[in-house]
Amino acid sequence: MILVNGLPSEHIRVFDRGLTYGDGVFRTLLVRAGHPLCWPRHYDKLYADCAALEIICPPEDILAAEMVELIEGTPDCVLKVIVTRGESQRGYAIPEHMEPTRILMTSAAAQYPANYLTDGVRLHLCSTRLAIQPLLAGIKHLNRLENVLARREWNNSEIAEGLMLDMDGNAIEGTMSNLFLLKGKTLHTPDLGRCGVAGVQRQRIMDLAGRLGMTVRVENLPLARIYDADEVVLCNSVFGVWQVRELAGKSWRAGKLAARLRSLLDDECH
Amino acid sequence: MILVNGLPSEHIRVFDRGLTYGDGVFRTLLVRAGHPLCWPRHYDKLYADCAALEIICPPEDILAAEMVELIEGTPDCVLKVIVTRGESQRGYAIPEHMEPTRILMTSAAAQYPANYLTDGVRLHLCSTRLAIQPLLAGIKHLNRLENVLARREWNNSEIAEGLMLDMDGNAIEGTMSNLFLLKGKTLHTPDLGRCGVAGVQRQRIMDLAGRLGMTVRVENLPLARIYDADEVVLCNSVFGVWQVRELAGKSWRAGKLAARLRSLLDDECH
Repeated sequence: MILVNGLPSEHIRVFDRGLTYGDGVFRTLLVRAGHPLCWPRHYDKLYADCAALEIICPPEDILAAEMVELIEGTPDCVLKVIVTRGESQRGYAIPEHMEPTRILMTSAAAQYPANYLTDGVRLHLCSTRLAIQPLLAGIKHLNRLENVLARREWNNSEIAEGLMLDMDGNAIEGTMSNLFLLKGKTLHTPDLGRCGVAGVQRQRIMDLAGRLGMTVRVENLPLARIYDADEVVLCNSVFGVWQVRELAGKSWRAGKLAARLRSLLDDECH
Repeated sequence: MILVNGLPSEHIRVFDRGLTYGDGVFRTLLVRAGHPLCWPRHYDKLYADCAALEIICPPEDILAAEMVELIEGTPDCVLKVIVTRGESQRGYAIPEHMEPTRILMTSAAAQYPANYLTDGVRLHLCSTRLAIQPLLAGIKHLNRLENVLARREWNNSEIAEGLMLDMDGNAIEGTMSNLFLLKGKTLHTPDLGRCGVAGVQRQRIMDLAGRLGMTVRVENLPLARIYDADEVVLCNSVFGVWQVRELAGKSWRAGKLAARLRSLLDDECH
C-alpha cells in the first residue's frame, strides 16, 4: 500500500521536483510487529535533512498517523518515506509557496541470506568514487546516481555490499550502509562532512558505543585504515549490523563487534 | 499536454527510479512554428546521455511521433523530454529487464525580458560549487540539487543567471546555461570533463565558431580568466545566446559576439 499526501495512490505528478531535480529527501526503516523502529530518530533526521535543503517537512503527527494506517495490514515490512519539495513549473527557481509531497510506501521485509548475520559479508571495493560536496554531505537526498553507478559494479549474489571511497581515497560508506572499524578499544567511523549519508543507525551506534567501553572517533579513514582494522562492520536501519569478512583479497576472522552492537541496538529501540 | 510512455497523463508511478534516485536524463528544447529546433542534435545527446548511464533510450521515431502529437496545439513552446531508467522495487540494484519511462511535456515559451538579448544580462556569482564527478560530468541527468541550491542564491529579477564554479575555482557554467568567453580571436569554453552539463547549444557554437574566423579552446578557466575576457556569453537551447554585461562588480561594454552567434545559430537549425 502507498499513501501520497495521505491518500491511497501509486502516482505523483510529473511536475514534482522530486522527479525533475531529485529535489527531496527520504528515509527507510524497519517495521516490526506493527512498530516502526526508532521512528522519533528517523523523523528528526527527516526534519533535519528537509531543513538543510529548506524543504518544508510534514508535521510528525501527520506522518505518524499515515504510518499507522499504512502498516495496519503489514506489521512486518520495510517502510520508505519520501518528502519532495513539491511541484513547480520548469526551471530551478523555487516558487514562493511550495507544498511538499509526502510519499509513504511499504515493501516486504528485506530477505538477506541468514549467514550474513552469523558469518559476516563479502564487500566489493567500488571504483565509483563519491564526489566532494559539503552542501549536500550527510543528507539522504534523492540525488543518488553515484549509488546506482556503484551498485552496478557487481552482480554476484555472494557479495553483500560495496565500499565507496571519496575522490581522495578515504573510505566513506557502503552503497546503502554506514561503516565502522574497530582498532583496539576505539570505534572509528568516516567523517561525512564532505560526502556520504549520515544514517540513523550510525548515529545510534555512536551514541551507544560507550556502553561497550569504546570511544568513537569521527575522522578521515584512508582505505589502508580499513585493512588495518581489527574488525569492520556495516550498518543501516534495515539489516542492522553486518561484520565485513572480506574486502578485495583481505579477510577478517569472525569477531564479536557486530553481535554486540546488534544486541545494544535491539535493546534500545523497539 | 503531457505524454507519459505515449499516453496522455500527468503522472508517473512512485516506483520510478527517476523519482527515487534521479536515475534518468532530460532535454529541454524550443519549438517554433511547430518545429522542434535541432531535434536530431537533441536526440543524439539524449541517446549519448542514456548510453553513459546504460539507460535504454527510446527509439528516435517513437519520440518524434509523440512530439508531433504533443505540439499540434502549441506550435510555439518549450518541450521537455525526460527519460528515466524505469521502475524498480526498493534498492539501488538495477533489475535485469528495465523498461524506460519517457515523458514529453510542453510549457509556454519562456518569457525573458527583451533587453536580455539587446543589452545583455547581469550574472550572480554563485557560492554553491559544483562537485567533481567525472562519471557524471557532461550528462544532463536528473540529479540537479546543486543547480537548485545555486538558483536559490538570488531572488532579484534583474539578475538573469548565476555563474557556477567547480570546487577548484574554475568557471564551469550557468545554472541553466553554458559559457563562452572571447579573448582576441579565440573562443574559450570550460572543460566539462569533471562536472557540468555539455549542452547542445554549446556544441553547436563550438562547431560553428570557425565561420566567424574564431578558434575554440576547451580548457580550465579560473574565474580570473572570465574577468579578463573581451566578451562573455551564455547559451542554451531555449534563450539562445546572451551577453554577460555584469558579474560581481565587473562590467563589460556591449559587444557583437552574442548577436553574431545568434545569427549563425538561427541560420543552421530550423
